[in-house]
Amino acid sequence: MEQYLVGVDVGGTNMRMGIVTPDGRILKKIQYPTDMSRGGLAMMEGLVSRIQDFVRKGTRGVRSEIRVGIGVAGPIDMRRGVLIAPPNLPDLHGFPLREFLQEKISLSTAIENDANAFTLGEGWKGAARGCLHYCGITLGTGVGGGIVVAGNILHGAEGLGGEVGHMALNPEGPLCGCGGRGCLEVYASGSGIRRMILEAIEKSDGKGIVHKSKEGLRKITSEEVFEAAQKGDETALKVFNEMGSYLGLGLVNLVNLFNPEKIVIGGKVSRAWNFFIEKAKEVVWQRAMKGQREKVEIVQADCGDDAGILGAAYAALKLE
Amino acid sequence: MEQYLVGVDVGGTNMRMGIVTPDGRILKKIQYPTDMSRGGLAMMEGLVSRIQDFVRKGTRGVRSEIRVGIGVAGPIDMRRGVLIAPPNLPDLHGFPLREFLQEKISLSTAIENDANAFTLGEGWKGAARGCLHYCGITLGTGVGGGIVVAGNILHGAEGLGGEVGHMALNPEGPLCGCGGRGCLEVYASGSGIRRMILEAIEKSDGKGIVHKSKEGLRKITSEEVFEAAQKGDETALKVFNEMGSYLGLGLVNLVNLFNPEKIVIGGKVSRAWNFFIEKAKEVVWQRAMKGQREKVEIVQADCGDDAGILGAAYAALKLE
Repeated sequence: MEQYLVGVDVGGTNMRMGIVTPDGRILKKIQYPTDMSRGGLAMMEGLVSRIQDFVRKGTRGVRSEIRVGIGVAGPIDMRRGVLIAPPNLPDLHGFPLREFLQEKISLSTAIENDANAFTLGEGWKGAARGCLHYCGITLGTGVGGGIVVAGNILHGAEGLGGEVGHMALNPEGPLCGCGGRGCLEVYASGSGIRRMILEAIEKSDGKGIVHKSKEGLRKITSEEVFEAAQKGDETALKVFNEMGSYLGLGLVNLVNLFNPEKIVIGGKVSRAWNFFIEKAKEVVWQRAMKGQREKVEIVQADCGDDAGILGAAYAALKLE
Repeated sequence: MEQYLVGVDVGGTNMRMGIVTPDGRILKKIQYPTDMSRGGLAMMEGLVSRIQDFVRKGTRGVRSEIRVGIGVAGPIDMRRGVLIAPPNLPDLHGFPLREFLQEKISLSTAIENDANAFTLGEGWKGAARGCLHYCGITLGTGVGGGIVVAGNILHGAEGLGGEVGHMALNPEGPLCGCGGRGCLEVYASGSGIRRMILEAIEKSDGKGIVHKSKEGLRKITSEEVFEAAQKGDETALKVFNEMGSYLGLGLVNLVNLFNPEKIVIGGKVSRAWNFFIEKAKEVVWQRAMKGQREKVEIVQADCGDDAGILGAAYAALKLE
């Protein structure tokens, strides 16, 4: 009997799902906008029908063993299978996701945090292929991460481990959404870049980006900062340099604590790679420990939007 | 046939070894001063004779399977079994410890970093007994650490992982011996406390500790700062408060990254527990993530000087 994996990436903007073979080929995939208009529970129920429909159509006529893996944003209590304060799905705090899926879908189902799914996907088929010890970082609206130790995702006591975005890097740094200060996330995320550009413009002499109207500035996005950097805007370049320097500090901690073979960096903000990575690597070279720093390769993610599907499928493959 | 473990703690000041049962009772132990006068290799050869002698005497007449575990200060390349820049044994950089022991002692032999041995000892018989996910920190001349993930020490790609003392906590902080800046070690070690008290005295108005002679101040030890704190010296109390606040930041990172059940803190500087732990816990409560921070218990080590012997014995027990 053939085995198929269904990898599902539950994002705040889009839902993606793919039928994946046990050796990691995506046979078929679909994507549709996330509809949160009727709340989180309705969204989850909709998701279940979509998965069932997708499985039916995707495996028509083939007798097969099917497993489902689902990657969801936000911390998951992995012992109980319960969502903890998911950032895009606030009304699903405390939602018993594992139990819900087991009831609704009569298939073996794995759940995983989205950043962990990204990390597993990159380790299975992407930039960290073949590594037993590596870290994944997603630079998006926030900063997520996953850590693989001896081939397994580091979950910790309750599945809340691997919060790479909330390493404290600067005791006097800006407040972070997590309640801490100076976390990696306040420097290396899309919203961190927005904050830094606004601060820089306030201090600057009016060059480059600052020619936007006041209204335009209020709404500036990290993508626009990236575009400005591509045009050589000095303020934007400075912001990415600062971002790279803090990202570098975060990498130092990962290198010293985990002695990884690779650190894979993805997420939409990583498109600005050339504007921050040199600075980040320089900080790693200056500050990480000898031995560890020679070993690690810092690389860009490789699977694009498929990392989440692949990683969720991989979590299902590894279900015991 | 009975099984015995020989746990050996190779310290810069003292050598300790114990005969340990598979359930973690120390049947017999000895301790003698480390003699480095004839260099590292001579010390290692002396150690081997001591171990052989100790095994002979300790198991006389009993047919038994014996395994040896050795904890050594400093990073160890665990793939190759080679010492990397051991702080107390500088001439043993690159020494092929595993091979050397296998040749000299015809017994199964495990090697482990001393901070990892401490951590394993505390997990086997001490303050983290029964935990699958925990961290150990030793506050000594430097700051060492070990991290246990799902029951196993986190070694990383080459055995250089777990360098808790070299998490970067303050980008503008003092230079650290590792080449970084503002590492946990520059705040929470004996030498960090020495540095902080000297800086504080320079800035202070001449109260308390500053009544020592200039000569006395130059030689001040972290123990003397501890004694001064016990007598209510304000400058000493401030230093331990600052130390606690940075230790707290380090704990925040461990809590967010590892979601541990416990963090066990030992080492000679931890004798000053009451002068820094409240501040450290306050920082964890303010800055670590909800979920993780509720789970973790921060506790004092329990095995005293035996942790190293026990942990090394445990590493031998778990040899495959």
